[in-house]
Amino acid sequence: MDTNKLNRILSAMKEQGIPQMIISDPPAIYYLTGKWIMPGERLLALYLNINGNHKLVINRLFPQEKDLGVELVWYDDIEDGVEILSRFVEKDKTIGIDKCWPARFLLRLQELGAGSRFVNGSLIVDYVRMVKDEHEQQLMREASLANDKVMAELIPLVGKGFTEAELDKKVREMYAKSGHSSVSFDPITAYGKSGADPHHMTDDTKGKRGDSVVLDIGGILNDYCSDMTRTVFLGEVSEKAREVYEVVKEAQQRGIEAAKPGNRMCDVDLACRNYIEEKGYGEYFTHRTGHSIGMEDHEYGDVSSVNTDVIQVGQCFSIEPGIYLMDEGIGVRIEDLVLITEDGCEVLNHFTKDLIIVPME
Amino acid sequence: MDTNKLNRILSAMKEQGIPQMIISDPPAIYYLTGKWIMPGERLLALYLNINGNHKLVINRLFPQEKDLGVELVWYDDIEDGVEILSRFVEKDKTIGIDKCWPARFLLRLQELGAGSRFVNGSLIVDYVRMVKDEHEQQLMREASLANDKVMAELIPLVGKGFTEAELDKKVREMYAKSGHSSVSFDPITAYGKSGADPHHMTDDTKGKRGDSVVLDIGGILNDYCSDMTRTVFLGEVSEKAREVYEVVKEAQQRGIEAAKPGNRMCDVDLACRNYIEEKGYGEYFTHRTGHSIGMEDHEYGDVSSVNTDVIQVGQCFSIEPGIYLMDEGIGVRIEDLVLITEDGCEVLNHFTKDLIIVPME
Repeated sequence: MDTNKLNRILSAMKEQGIPQMIISDPPAIYYLTGKWIMPGERLLALYLNINGNHKLVINRLFPQEKDLGVELVWYDDIEDGVEILSRFVEKDKTIGIDKCWPARFLLRLQELGAGSRFVNGSLIVDYVRMVKDEHEQQLMREASLANDKVMAELIPLVGKGFTEAELDKKVREMYAKSGHSSVSFDPITAYGKSGADPHHMTDDTKGKRGDSVVLDIGGILNDYCSDMTRTVFLGEVSEKAREVYEVVKEAQQRGIEAAKPGNRMCDVDLACRNYIEEKGYGEYFTHRTGHSIGMEDHEYGDVSSVNTDVIQVGQCFSIEPGIYLMDEGIGVRIEDLVLITEDGCEVLNHFTKDLIIVPME
Repeated sequence: MDTNKLNRILSAMKEQGIPQMIISDPPAIYYLTGKWIMPGERLLALYLNINGNHKLVINRLFPQEKDLGVELVWYDDIEDGVEILSRFVEKDKTIGIDKCWPARFLLRLQELGAGSRFVNGSLIVDYVRMVKDEHEQQLMREASLANDKVMAELIPLVGKGFTEAELDKKVREMYAKSGHSSVSFDPITAYGKSGADPHHMTDDTKGKRGDSVVLDIGGILNDYCSDMTRTVFLGEVSEKAREVYEVVKEAQQRGIEAAKPGNRMCDVDLACRNYIEEKGYGEYFTHRTGHSIGMEDHEYGDVSSVNTDVIQVGQCFSIEPGIYLMDEGIGVRIEDLVLITEDGCEVLNHFTKDLIIVPME
């Protein structure tokens, strides 16, 4: 295990009175061991104890050639993996549980009485992961540069008469071709009314003249995620849509300016939100401003009005305000990733935010 | 909600003394409502009560146009969705919990005291889902027919010098081109030693003359999954590898013959396992014989030596024995899906299981 990262986690466990913990989420296990193990529905549990009795309980289907720096405890498909895990748990002490651990395992551990109190222990790992080390920062930069290129390649296709599903397929092909292991989330390639629904499911809609087109895309490059949104217009843009676009663009810029050490996460949200409200569109900005990102597209630490955590150097998150006028079929969102520096932030996306009208072919 | 499916679930809840339940897994919600809602890390909870006070607690980000046949309860990103959910829970009664529900939600619900006893309630839904209705059976047939075609297209490529990762990409493209929404699991395209590790991660290995090549692939077509494995040989086959192949093939056939109503799931496993043991390879068959499948690649009900559930008409599962000789770099697995009929089973895959030697180009 990475000693530096492990020690940061063990210190936090001591501070917070959580003497033992179960980590089950593959990215968190990769973060510590440097090894991706994808157990599917099977149990995979890294048991950490402040006294050092760490174990990785793992199914025999996933033989490990590399030394992971932790003792491996094997079980097979006909054994009760949680029961085996429970033998290491100190039954009269609090145990931290991975926020992602499926209920089938947690309920079984509780049934076995393995722990005096069960608490969500993930915040400890999440706060450590939130601050990217230098190597991670470089990977985040590279992932977003590659994403800028995919966006540049995608936008001209918007005018070619493809359906949303066809564009979706093109996007996935572009990530595959440019060295990404996969998309970092299901792409959004949404015309007009579809784009006015922030979580529209891709369908066979085609674009019409005047449509706003929301392109929210990202990929995974060397295990780190990109995520950006641009909104373009098809053939022409109405006065109303242009106004909405400029409001979102300015709001997003205000968010970027608020993203600096010492400010709180909610300050970034409010910088965007207050401007949009001031312009009379407050009720149409229906989601939080952003989310942390790293090995996963959505990591702990959202950019919302209720997150009062103070921003730290090395954090990486999205700033993505939007305005969605369902009745008028106008949806606009603009999103960049930022990396917090000593005196502000580095915007990781460099693709223009000027309003683009894509000619219809 | 589908009244027939809902009533089967409510009856089972009454029988098992679980008066209320939380269903959170998107496929289970789709199964009941006919609507895919993918909430990502956000709470989505279908609360069922035998007295009929059903609710779907859902984030405002997922507006619904269609009537889902259940009252929707909305929350947004700055509200505590679990607290809102807890208002409907009868606090002094047992509550069934979805096996997939992340610990962050379950721990919060427990903290709120919403329920006198928390039990894994998923078996109720799983047993209902295990038996496919006629419409589902037809979709399973069509998905496997499409999978046979992908396999037929894939096998000739094995001789063309592609790396595993390149073959993997080809497979994904084939599914995309043939109308699948995606692969149903990460494909396995493993040469020689890689194939001898049943859960090898795809890498840049290329095939060598004499390699066994394990091709374990499946796609999602109209929301239902396919999953099949064939093992072919590159350029030539050693006597040992041929022997192993024939043992696996015969074992798999014995599994198919045991797959009929009235037999138990473990009888299918044992039919394969006993034959492989008899031939002296018992210790090299390191996994269960198969798994149920439907809207998800792995559904409840595995084909293992410990599953004594009696097989019912309408069940669908894989039969996939294998022998893995790590030291000799020989891995062989053969897998078909079967659908249980009145007097036996229908094998859903039709691609040949005769030993194939793919010429090297």
